[in-house]
Amino acid sequence: MTRRARLLIAYHGAAFHGFAINRDVETVAGTLVAAISTVVRAPVRLTGAGRTDAGVHAWGQVISTDLPVDTELERLVHRVNSMCGPHVVVRSAEWADGDFDARFSAVWRHYRYTVLNTSTASPFLTDTTWHVRGGLDLSAMRRAGESLIGEHDFSTFCRRPKVPEGEPDKTLVRRVISAEWLPLEDGLLRFEIRANAFCHQMVRSIVGTLVDVGRGKYRPEQILDMLQARHRAVAGTVAPPQGLCLWEVGYPPLVESDAR
Amino acid sequence: MTRRARLLIAYHGAAFHGFAINRDVETVAGTLVAAISTVVRAPVRLTGAGRTDAGVHAWGQVISTDLPVDTELERLVHRVNSMCGPHVVVRSAEWADGDFDARFSAVWRHYRYTVLNTSTASPFLTDTTWHVRGGLDLSAMRRAGESLIGEHDFSTFCRRPKVPEGEPDKTLVRRVISAEWLPLEDGLLRFEIRANAFCHQMVRSIVGTLVDVGRGKYRPEQILDMLQARHRAVAGTVAPPQGLCLWEVGYPPLVESDAR
Repeated sequence: MTRRARLLIAYHGAAFHGFAINRDVETVAGTLVAAISTVVRAPVRLTGAGRTDAGVHAWGQVISTDLPVDTELERLVHRVNSMCGPHVVVRSAEWADGDFDARFSAVWRHYRYTVLNTSTASPFLTDTTWHVRGGLDLSAMRRAGESLIGEHDFSTFCRRPKVPEGEPDKTLVRRVISAEWLPLEDGLLRFEIRANAFCHQMVRSIVGTLVDVGRGKYRPEQILDMLQARHRAVAGTVAPPQGLCLWEVGYPPLVESDAR
Repeated sequence: MTRRARLLIAYHGAAFHGFAINRDVETVAGTLVAAISTVVRAPVRLTGAGRTDAGVHAWGQVISTDLPVDTELERLVHRVNSMCGPHVVVRSAEWADGDFDARFSAVWRHYRYTVLNTSTASPFLTDTTWHVRGGLDLSAMRRAGESLIGEHDFSTFCRRPKVPEGEPDKTLVRRVISAEWLPLEDGLLRFEIRANAFCHQMVRSIVGTLVDVGRGKYRPEQILDMLQARHRAVAGTVAPPQGLCLWEVGYPPLVESDAR
């Protein structure tokens, strides 16, 4: 007998070759599946809310999995963290409703991207920021970012997924709920973006293009023209993965209360 | 013709086998000497304010070196950072008085040690903090830390330096100017300590023993008894290197103004 569980996960992207299981290399899901299977003495499968690329971090990745009903969740967390930590840790675990699916039940994802805008790179922020030299026009970046809010076809800012021949193309329409640049201390700039869902490389492609706006390569108003072109060739730079972090995933209140 | 220069350096300790030059492994000084020599097209030697151990970081290491008088310092910084960065960076460079010596002119050193006191380790703080599980009595740690302020023989908290036969032992008397624990956000605790100078492993030995106080292994009053024993065997735990950072080095105002 198994029961659906929901796990909250954090990981350092530099330690893994991405989230999704890949037999040839160490991935977040591969590492967790191996540890959880060992602890519960049964094969397990897991579903993540977001498939982060190599080098991308997570603070609030959510995973759903089916575990033997007699699993003691607190002990599971402790043992998995002893086996896998500290580059990937289970922050918490709880039982969930049988319908709960980390990916399909999610109603929004919140990503954070951090830019270090200083003349000299920092030895301590190499793995977690994108170092951008030279002045950036933050107010232009803000206006450009805000113009993405709402429902749009994000083909310009995504890697088009491969679709088997004969099948229809997948929609790249997504609804951006909020998108904001925040200046922090010591030259750090943070981009916070929340959307119902993201397509592949969407945040990195948006951030790179908004930084291009900050550098004066594009005007803020051009972002909407780029969106309307629906063609990847018109987008700007793709920001590197290490500045990106899957921060939080939202679920409907009903699913959340069922989980208790 | 050469002229004395003063460089401000930051580095990530995990990327190097310590500060001091060692032919067999990559060190901070070895990396900088190679790059600076290449840029100025002349052999250089350098002196650091503090010889940090493997794994120990620096934000405010200071280096003195003699450079050809026609060296353009701004260009030197840029080129050295292009060659060495981002795990070691030159934050700034300026000409100094001919008497200036990064080590012997220094009147105080300020080290920072960061403890992460949470039940679960953080994937993002592995390289820069010491993760300590379980409750810590911060007020006991504070009182114990304050009792170190003043001039003491720190033999208990140091690795005794090797002295050639026939030579007198080196003094391990040091004057601690301030020593303070600060609670930060999210379970982070920071120990800030300033002294005229430090002996080998002194900060890590003090921090480890103060954390032992926080765990209830020693009473705060015992720290002074330990000091008076002048024997390393009575000290507690030695904290691991990755939590330690050489934060700032102080020089007399005269030397500083001469440097301009």
